[in-house]
Amino acid sequence: MLQWARNYRRDQLAGDLGAGAIVALMLIPQGMAYALLAGLPPAAGLYASILPPVAYALFGSSMTQSVGPMAITSLMSAAALSALAPAGSVLYVTLATQLALLTGLVLLACGALRLGFLSGFLSRPVLAGFTAGAAILIAVGQLPLLLTDAAAHPDVPTALIGGVSLALLWLAKGLLLRRTGEGSPWPVLLRLVPAAVIGAATLAAWILELDRSGVRVLGSIPRGLPPLGLQYSGAHWQSLLAPALLIGFVVFVSSQSAAQSLAQRRGERVLPDGELLGLGAANVAGALSGGFPVTGSISRSAVNDAAGANTPLASLVSAGLLAAVLSLPTGWLAPLPLAALAATIIVAVAGMIDIAALKEAWRYDRADAMAMIVTAAGVLALGVERGVIIGVVVSLGALIARASRPNIAVVGRAPGSDFFRNVGRHEVETLPEVLMLRIDAAIWFGNTDAILGRVELELASRPATRHVVLVMSAVNHIDVTGVLMLRELNLSLAGRNILLHLAKTKESVMDRLASSQLPAELRGRMFASPGQAFRALECGASGG
Amino acid sequence: MLQWARNYRRDQLAGDLGAGAIVALMLIPQGMAYALLAGLPPAAGLYASILPPVAYALFGSSMTQSVGPMAITSLMSAAALSALAPAGSVLYVTLATQLALLTGLVLLACGALRLGFLSGFLSRPVLAGFTAGAAILIAVGQLPLLLTDAAAHPDVPTALIGGVSLALLWLAKGLLLRRTGEGSPWPVLLRLVPAAVIGAATLAAWILELDRSGVRVLGSIPRGLPPLGLQYSGAHWQSLLAPALLIGFVVFVSSQSAAQSLAQRRGERVLPDGELLGLGAANVAGALSGGFPVTGSISRSAVNDAAGANTPLASLVSAGLLAAVLSLPTGWLAPLPLAALAATIIVAVAGMIDIAALKEAWRYDRADAMAMIVTAAGVLALGVERGVIIGVVVSLGALIARASRPNIAVVGRAPGSDFFRNVGRHEVETLPEVLMLRIDAAIWFGNTDAILGRVELELASRPATRHVVLVMSAVNHIDVTGVLMLRELNLSLAGRNILLHLAKTKESVMDRLASSQLPAELRGRMFASPGQAFRALECGASGG
Repeated sequence: MLQWARNYRRDQLAGDLGAGAIVALMLIPQGMAYALLAGLPPAAGLYASILPPVAYALFGSSMTQSVGPMAITSLMSAAALSALAPAGSVLYVTLATQLALLTGLVLLACGALRLGFLSGFLSRPVLAGFTAGAAILIAVGQLPLLLTDAAAHPDVPTALIGGVSLALLWLAKGLLLRRTGEGSPWPVLLRLVPAAVIGAATLAAWILELDRSGVRVLGSIPRGLPPLGLQYSGAHWQSLLAPALLIGFVVFVSSQSAAQSLAQRRGERVLPDGELLGLGAANVAGALSGGFPVTGSISRSAVNDAAGANTPLASLVSAGLLAAVLSLPTGWLAPLPLAALAATIIVAVAGMIDIAALKEAWRYDRADAMAMIVTAAGVLALGVERGVIIGVVVSLGALIARASRPNIAVVGRAPGSDFFRNVGRHEVETLPEVLMLRIDAAIWFGNTDAILGRVELELASRPATRHVVLVMSAVNHIDVTGVLMLRELNLSLAGRNILLHLAKTKESVMDRLASSQLPAELRGRMFASPGQAFRALECGASGG
Repeated sequence: MLQWARNYRRDQLAGDLGAGAIVALMLIPQGMAYALLAGLPPAAGLYASILPPVAYALFGSSMTQSVGPMAITSLMSAAALSALAPAGSVLYVTLATQLALLTGLVLLACGALRLGFLSGFLSRPVLAGFTAGAAILIAVGQLPLLLTDAAAHPDVPTALIGGVSLALLWLAKGLLLRRTGEGSPWPVLLRLVPAAVIGAATLAAWILELDRSGVRVLGSIPRGLPPLGLQYSGAHWQSLLAPALLIGFVVFVSSQSAAQSLAQRRGERVLPDGELLGLGAANVAGALSGGFPVTGSISRSAVNDAAGANTPLASLVSAGLLAAVLSLPTGWLAPLPLAALAATIIVAVAGMIDIAALKEAWRYDRADAMAMIVTAAGVLALGVERGVIIGVVVSLGALIARASRPNIAVVGRAPGSDFFRNVGRHEVETLPEVLMLRIDAAIWFGNTDAILGRVELELASRPATRHVVLVMSAVNHIDVTGVLMLRELNLSLAGRNILLHLAKTKESVMDRLASSQLPAELRGRMFASPGQAFRALECGASGG
């Protein structure tokens, strides 16, 4: 905790200050836009961008993570809250802080229980599919704000502002993707285009008094720092628990994946359990300061990193600047057209639809590409909450399928040596009555059926077999189900006049097996090595 | 289908006839007892023992499986049905057949979708824990029938009949466990004790007219074969679907485990998908003949096997005998005291509490023993339906934990050879600047974190490392997440002036990798073998 502060070097300061300022300029429009997406007043988005990053700087493990509101968690918050209270009501705002508190507590509990490893159980394609599906939902949801007036009728001035903003943002993004040479000032400058577009749209709306002609604008933002302390409704805790679990999972998985890829690039490490604590603390801090669920943002973290951030001081600088903005008069924000904010959101989430990754997955591994498509389709068809569950189910399905496919090779003796190699890939000697199978995996309930099936398959094509030798050199562990399988295989083979032998069983495995009934029941022998088995069975000297 | 009938040999007939008769004598008391346990009239248990085994004989794959009512599925049926209708009502009986129909359709659908492999995903200890928990619930639930009269007051005659029956059955069971020598007639004769005890209790109750003194008795059983055709309530289909899924899962898993262990002992094979079809057909047949969910019974199947059954003809014989019993006058069954049936159930389920298996698991593998205890405790605390779910969750937890522990070994060169061995277990040569890791598993999202963690762990203890060589000879597959992990590892190591190399990548894996960005990004080299890597890095000739 705060190790970065103790080892702080003066040469890190300039980068942190610059990055902090740039991220603050991103956060003002993004924070307000994501608050609107969550059904909350725009100020909540600014509140959620002050204390949460400070808490993350104290407890988190990533150096360049930018914590604050994010599109997908905002959408999930809206889905959970709109079932319990009318959007914009006092209860709704209160429940948003309760949801952030529960999300934070869920994350802290998972951190305390060291469940960080769970993030590894959503495959990257499934995560990409989930993100893409959610991004499409969000973008489509922004279209009314982009094109219509308060009465939901198509409105030309609104559509003009929305369209021009969208075009400019898209252009900046396109340029950004091309100009990414090392040391070029372009990327960082282009990242400021959103703030500039928002500023220009606000100025135009103010001069032309567009709000009078029906263009929806932001309206007044209360001046002053966020209210501290928990707003507590006393109700709906139970109804919020399931959404908090799902949001907590999404917060962790998406944030972890952002932090991980940045840290790898910098040659640093992110500790999943530390990340859980940092994100948990950030959400609790948000709950205590009028916010809503927050997470590490992939795009803002990348900007933070690219703009030169060296330590979490950059996030403290951003938080300080946002606090300063709220402390000064905020009237200048009022004429901001919501269509411009909608354009910001659309461009931001469009970047989350990773067609290139889908194409690459399709070329590389059809099954992974299908998992990605199924998850994205699930999110689109059933919504973002059930979409998370679909993603987990798809990943678990892949897990089960993969775990049940152990490496097993039929082996034979390399001529003139004592080494045993795969018969399919090397010229080796085999004995007609002996089937030697090397099992390259622990033997456990997830693969016992596969191992049995493979033995039967090989026996079916080798009717002369009288001995089955399992080469156990790579078997690190056999669980109770595995021992039962071996005992039953031994009996079943004996019923067909075939002896089961084991060869080169590891000492640790052997010690455990000694406490089971397998050694007493085994009709064949325990050979020290496949070579010993080969020589003994070659001479017909075996027989158990 | 019916392959056994086409290849039937005359010398199999005697065994099938004898076993069929013995199983029929077991089925009369068991069927009625399990029907009462399910909250149904006793006749339903006899109905469920006629057509279901016939259907299984036509479609199933096991030679000696005895299909009919079973304690756990009866308890689960009662839990599902009692929420929808009062026990004993006409609606209740109708819903029981609907539940059997849905269970059968679920099983048939799983068979058609070839989901038989799913049975492999409940570990044996978890299954044993589930069974033990359910057995305790059932035994405790029988105590009122064993000890009290119709008004639920303790009743001396009832308790006497119950106690004596229990003692005799327990004694027979104890003797049975001891006298199991080959060719001894004892086991089969002792299996008839339950029928004898029930007969004696019935006779005693009739002579002493115990029903007049408040002892609960069976009452009249309608004479005649079961009514054919679906009793259809038109309601509650949706509410029955979830229980049907859970019961179907338990039917399949327990039946499959019984069939598998018997088949192994006989040197035969059971096809999980064929078992699904057989059990599905049996439940549909039960639904069409006034029954309730049925499954393969471990205890009856073992008796069937021990009594000499060779083919499903034995089950057809049992079914025929039961049909004959129902066709003749049934008044002689009326005075049967329910306390004696309760004693039958208690002794039957007591055998399902496998303390020896728990002890063996505890000695052999503490984690498996804990899974068993947690599942049993879950069933006791939350009931048998949620208990199934707990069992699956515990198994999945074990699956995830196991899948995330790939075999990884630091290797070095065996002196004077080109073979590379685990440095922890062999005398080998290593280079101070080179870390060679052999990965003995497919690289996929379930273990990428574990692989990364291991690399970092080894690097932390070898600060001089400038080259990391991953020996890929056992890596059969790398999924999209795995490729991303390797790309990020490559970058992260490069940031620390360490080169990542791959050695002995399989051709199939190499072909796929060629379509990814890894080959272009890799700072180190792709070596044909660890030996080539060793020689190149030894001479300092490498460098990417």
